[in-house]
Amino acid sequence: MTDSVTVYSPATVANVVCGFDVLGFALAAPFDTMHLRCTPEPGVVIINEDDYGLPTEPTRNVAGAALLALLRALPEPLGFEMRINKGIKPGSGIGSSAASAAGAVVAANRLLNDRFSPEELVQFAMFGEEVASGARHADNIAPAIYGGFTLIRSADPLDIVPLQAPPLHVTVVHPQIEVRTADARRILRQQVPLKDAIRQWGNVAGLVAGLLQSDYDLIGRSLEDVIVEPVRSILIPGFAAVKAASMAAGALGGGISGSGPSIFMLSRDEATAQAVGHAMRGVYEPLGVDFHIHVTTLSPVGVRFAV
Amino acid sequence: MTDSVTVYSPATVANVVCGFDVLGFALAAPFDTMHLRCTPEPGVVIINEDDYGLPTEPTRNVAGAALLALLRALPEPLGFEMRINKGIKPGSGIGSSAASAAGAVVAANRLLNDRFSPEELVQFAMFGEEVASGARHADNIAPAIYGGFTLIRSADPLDIVPLQAPPLHVTVVHPQIEVRTADARRILRQQVPLKDAIRQWGNVAGLVAGLLQSDYDLIGRSLEDVIVEPVRSILIPGFAAVKAASMAAGALGGGISGSGPSIFMLSRDEATAQAVGHAMRGVYEPLGVDFHIHVTTLSPVGVRFAV
Repeated sequence: MTDSVTVYSPATVANVVCGFDVLGFALAAPFDTMHLRCTPEPGVVIINEDDYGLPTEPTRNVAGAALLALLRALPEPLGFEMRINKGIKPGSGIGSSAASAAGAVVAANRLLNDRFSPEELVQFAMFGEEVASGARHADNIAPAIYGGFTLIRSADPLDIVPLQAPPLHVTVVHPQIEVRTADARRILRQQVPLKDAIRQWGNVAGLVAGLLQSDYDLIGRSLEDVIVEPVRSILIPGFAAVKAASMAAGALGGGISGSGPSIFMLSRDEATAQAVGHAMRGVYEPLGVDFHIHVTTLSPVGVRFAV
Repeated sequence: MTDSVTVYSPATVANVVCGFDVLGFALAAPFDTMHLRCTPEPGVVIINEDDYGLPTEPTRNVAGAALLALLRALPEPLGFEMRINKGIKPGSGIGSSAASAAGAVVAANRLLNDRFSPEELVQFAMFGEEVASGARHADNIAPAIYGGFTLIRSADPLDIVPLQAPPLHVTVVHPQIEVRTADARRILRQQVPLKDAIRQWGNVAGLVAGLLQSDYDLIGRSLEDVIVEPVRSILIPGFAAVKAASMAAGALGGGISGSGPSIFMLSRDEATAQAVGHAMRGVYEPLGVDFHIHVTTLSPVGVRFAV
């Protein structure tokens, strides 16, 4: 067996507009670069090669917790040393913790000759998400591992459905403000009007049909969220202006990435995605909010191996 | 222009389990047989050739109201005589009124050399639904006109999305009890828990993906309704027993058709659909409830023309 491997683990967008808690997708960039090697001593060692100062104690590190979950499923004691260089800024709302957790278990599985199924890897990586947010959710983990668009049809029991999608360009703006996931959760209403729920699942159905039938217009029409966005977007300064400017620039649609603060927009071609980035800049520069923009694509693959 | 035409207009299932208010499909049987001819006198004449005693005054007859809506969209005054022989029992919950309204406008459109688009025909036929139930809804009209599975992504503005589906066999049992649509509407909670809504739209997404990818297992797993069925099924004696017996007989899943009282089940093959019918009979015979069973298929086409 090979005894070391390098992987690139992608950023992901969860809570895709109408698909709150069920739809996510992988991005081509940014990504974490992670190097895993087997060690003679059992257990997990984490080495951070970036400046984010994340915990290195394995039980408190998302990649560490994911690796420990995987090790518990093995009959033999094994040791891993994981070097992590995060390209995805923690707290940005584009699946930073999921990327590290997913990258770790995919890398380990390669060293174990692909002993585990993708679904088992998702289960292991969810322990990493638990460390990050207190909830063992798969919204970002699934697209990070499967790539492309994924549906979590059911969280319990876990039922992941990969969805074919046409080429899509993605513009993400990360305003440098903090939205705590706990706040974003607390602000949600626990009861919603039935008529809004019906409108939402009509849009979810339309979005899935649009993706599978490569119908960009239908994708655009279906990118409407009448339940979560109206509430959560108030936590993100400039949200309405960013959305309006992006649509005017030709975006198909978009919304809050994960629980924010990043905002993503989908476009049919790269020129439009660049124009959307320009429009986003035009909103945040005058506001004096620091921000970072990624112009990238939907990635049909998840965690990739360095050649 | 031809001056008369005969059409067969199909029964339809609306509110397909998790797809409440958005998903419907057409059945190969039963159907209404309708004969339309142009008359020299402007206006609409309705002649019932069955024994249901439905109103013949055009404004109070669903086919009549649909034809009047279509006539209002024409510059020239025209006259139609519509003979209707209903094969779909009124009040059964399988789109009896929609079939008459849809059949009428499709027939008229043929006599007008297909002047109107399918979506315009849906709009006209919705005036028939208004006569029947007080609401101008398209849940049954859309599959009756388009055939196959249809998604009403949005009712306002109307956005109909035809969905490809694999071959499906359908068993429908119509217990001869009355469920008034108004009662079925009143019993629904107007607020639903967010977590149930999320589970529902995960299932809607799974059902659409299962249909478009011809994944029968996914279709089966997604046929779960945590919002409407738990409430409305109490209006239908024997519902839980029918469902349990149908699943034991091999059905993929199913639920209330429309607002009831009919119950439908989907199966992969005809033998299973027949076994499901047998299982349904085994529930209702001992209960002493009169019932009628249809073993049929999903129809890829809607209103058909007699050759």
